[in-house]
Amino acid sequence: MVNFTPGPSQLYFTVPDHVKKAFRDGIPSLSHRSKQFEAIFEYTTQGIKTLLGVPDDYFIVFTGSATEIWERVIQNLVAERSHHLVNGAFSKRFFEIAEQLNKKPSKTQVAVGNSFEAVSIPTGTEVIALTHNETSSGVSLPIPFISSFRESNPDSLIVVDAVSSLPYPDFDYSKVDSVFFSVQKGFGLPAGLGIWMMNKSCLAKAGQLLSSGISIGSYHSLPLLYSNALKNQTPETPNVLGIYLLGKVVNDFNQKGALAIRQETQYKAALIYKALEEHSILKPFVKNKIDRSKTVIVADAGNRTADLTTYLQENGLFPGDGYGDSKKTQLRFANFPAHSKEQFENLADLIAGFK
Amino acid sequence: MVNFTPGPSQLYFTVPDHVKKAFRDGIPSLSHRSKQFEAIFEYTTQGIKTLLGVPDDYFIVFTGSATEIWERVIQNLVAERSHHLVNGAFSKRFFEIAEQLNKKPSKTQVAVGNSFEAVSIPTGTEVIALTHNETSSGVSLPIPFISSFRESNPDSLIVVDAVSSLPYPDFDYSKVDSVFFSVQKGFGLPAGLGIWMMNKSCLAKAGQLLSSGISIGSYHSLPLLYSNALKNQTPETPNVLGIYLLGKVVNDFNQKGALAIRQETQYKAALIYKALEEHSILKPFVKNKIDRSKTVIVADAGNRTADLTTYLQENGLFPGDGYGDSKKTQLRFANFPAHSKEQFENLADLIAGFK
Repeated sequence: MVNFTPGPSQLYFTVPDHVKKAFRDGIPSLSHRSKQFEAIFEYTTQGIKTLLGVPDDYFIVFTGSATEIWERVIQNLVAERSHHLVNGAFSKRFFEIAEQLNKKPSKTQVAVGNSFEAVSIPTGTEVIALTHNETSSGVSLPIPFISSFRESNPDSLIVVDAVSSLPYPDFDYSKVDSVFFSVQKGFGLPAGLGIWMMNKSCLAKAGQLLSSGISIGSYHSLPLLYSNALKNQTPETPNVLGIYLLGKVVNDFNQKGALAIRQETQYKAALIYKALEEHSILKPFVKNKIDRSKTVIVADAGNRTADLTTYLQENGLFPGDGYGDSKKTQLRFANFPAHSKEQFENLADLIAGFK
Repeated sequence: MVNFTPGPSQLYFTVPDHVKKAFRDGIPSLSHRSKQFEAIFEYTTQGIKTLLGVPDDYFIVFTGSATEIWERVIQNLVAERSHHLVNGAFSKRFFEIAEQLNKKPSKTQVAVGNSFEAVSIPTGTEVIALTHNETSSGVSLPIPFISSFRESNPDSLIVVDAVSSLPYPDFDYSKVDSVFFSVQKGFGLPAGLGIWMMNKSCLAKAGQLLSSGISIGSYHSLPLLYSNALKNQTPETPNVLGIYLLGKVVNDFNQKGALAIRQETQYKAALIYKALEEHSILKPFVKNKIDRSKTVIVADAGNRTADLTTYLQENGLFPGDGYGDSKKTQLRFANFPAHSKEQFENLADLIAGFK
C-alpha cells in the first residue's frame, strides 16, 4: 500500500534500515551531552544546509514539532505585531497562536484556494508570517512572491512555514530570516521533531525583547537554543533518535541531489494535475496554475469523493481526506520524495480510469 | 555493555521487538487524527494509570520532553507565585524557568545532598514545586514528606517532578495535583516524550488565568491539551512512535506488576548502597539514609573516580559521571527496570573488589 496522506505520510524507503543500525549502535540510549551526540547534531544540521542551500550565517535548532515553532517564533521575535498572510487552516492557526500569546497580530486574508494580490504590510510589523504551502488547500506561495517582501520591509523579520513543502522549494534565504519544517512530511520520517532555521537577525531580536523585560520563554528561548547549538547540543534531552534518522535521510537525499528531487517532484505533480485537468468528473481544486502546490495536490471530487477513495484504496493507494469542511468533496495527495515516480504514474493512470 | 547513566539510559529489553512490530504495522506513518492513533493514546494512558495507580479523575497528556512540562506547569498554573524546594541542579532549573516566564517564584534551598527540614510555604503560593528525585545528587524526597503539604496548603497546587524516579515511587495522588516524567529514564525508551498527569484542579486554575487575561501558551495550553485528550488526541502531530512504544513497555511492566518492579528496585539499590558503605575508599554521597534515592545512586569516589570509571568500563559497565562540579569526584548509577538484578549483583561485586 502507498500512503498519500500529507502527514504523517509514507516513510522514506531507507528509514527501516537506518532504525536497525541506530539500535545496533546504541543511539536510543546515547547521552545528549556526549561527543557522539554532538557529532550527530553537526552531521544532521550540516547535511540540511547542504541539501537546502542554507547559507552559513544561518543556524539550525530542533524542537518537538513545527507547531511548537509557531509558538517560539511569536514568543522570541514579536513584542506586539506580527502580520500573517492567511489563506487556509494552517496559516490561520499561526495567526491565532500570536493572539493566544497576547500579541496584537494583523492579517491579510483571502478565501481558501485563492491567491494573494498586492499585500500591504502595516507599519511597525515585526514579523511577516508566510505559509509557503497551505497543507489544507494545496495553495503554495510562489518563491518570487516570498522574496518580494524583503525590499519594501527592511525592518521586518520574514518567517516562512515550509512544513509540507521542504525539501522541494529552492528559497532565496537572503530574502527571508527564518524557515521551518517538520520531519513527518517531505522527509518521510516518524513524527516528533521540528526543525527551525534562522539568521542572526532573529537572535538579535530575541535579545532585544529580553532586554526590554518581555519573556521569550525558558528552555527554548532563542539565546539558549543558540548557545547550545554552538556546541552542537540542545537545551533539553531531545528526540535523539529523530535527529539521527533525519541526518541519515538527508544524507540519502544529498546522494540523490536536491536538483533531482526537485525535478522528480515537478514530474510527479505534473502527472496528477494533468490527469485531473483532463478528467470529466474530477478537477484540481486550485484554479490558478501558479498557486498550485507541487507537494500537496488537492483534487475536487464533489459527491464522488467517497467512490474515488474506495476505488483508489482497492488498488492499494491511500489518499488523504480533504481538510475540515472539505472532507466530503476533496482528496489530498502528498507528493514527497518518499513517493516514487512509479507510484505516481500508477496513481495518474488510476485517476484517468475513474468513471 | 550495560549503561548506568541516569538518562538517556539503558533501553528496556523489549523495546527493539516493539520497534520492529511498529514498523511492520505502519505506526510511524499513522495519522494522528486516525482511530488507530486514538486507540494507541487510550491504551498508553490507561496502561500508565494502571501501572502507577493514578486515580480516574486524573488525565494524562504528552509533551516533547519533561523540560517542556516545567515550562507548561508555570505557564498554566501560576499567575505570580510558585514556591520551589531546591536541593540541586534540576530543582533549581524548575525555579529559574518560573523567573524566565516573568513570574515571582520563591524557594526553600538546602545544600546539595541535604534534607529539607520544616519548610514554610509563603502565603499566596499558587504552586508548590517538588522534585521527587534530584537526578544531580541522588537525593529523593520521602513520599510522606511529599504528602504532608496538602493539609496545611489547601489552596496551593502541588506539582511533583518525578522524572528520574517513576515507575518506582508509589505516590498518594490524592495528596498532590500533578506528577510528570519522561520516558528515557525509568521507562527505558528512546528520548523525545514527556508525560504530564494532573487532576481537574489544574485545569480549573489554567481557566482562571486565561479568564484574567494571562497567556497560558497556545498549542500546549491545558484547556487545549485536555479537550484533545478527551478524544484521545493531541493538539499537534506528536511523537506517535514514542507514545506507541511507551504503551507497549508499560504493558510489559504491568505484566510483571508494579509491586515486583518496586521490590526489585529496592533490592538492587540495597546491594549498591551496602557495597558503598562497606567499602574502604568509596562511600554513598547522600549521608542520611531516608534521603537516598533508590533510582539514582550517587557514589563518592574522590580522586579515585577516574580509576573506578575505567575499572567498571573494562568490565562492561558504564557508570554516569557525577553532575556538574562533581564530575571528577562522583559517579552516578541509574537503577531502572531496564537494569537487571544480575547486572546489579555484578556491579556490587565489582565495587566490592575495587582497590
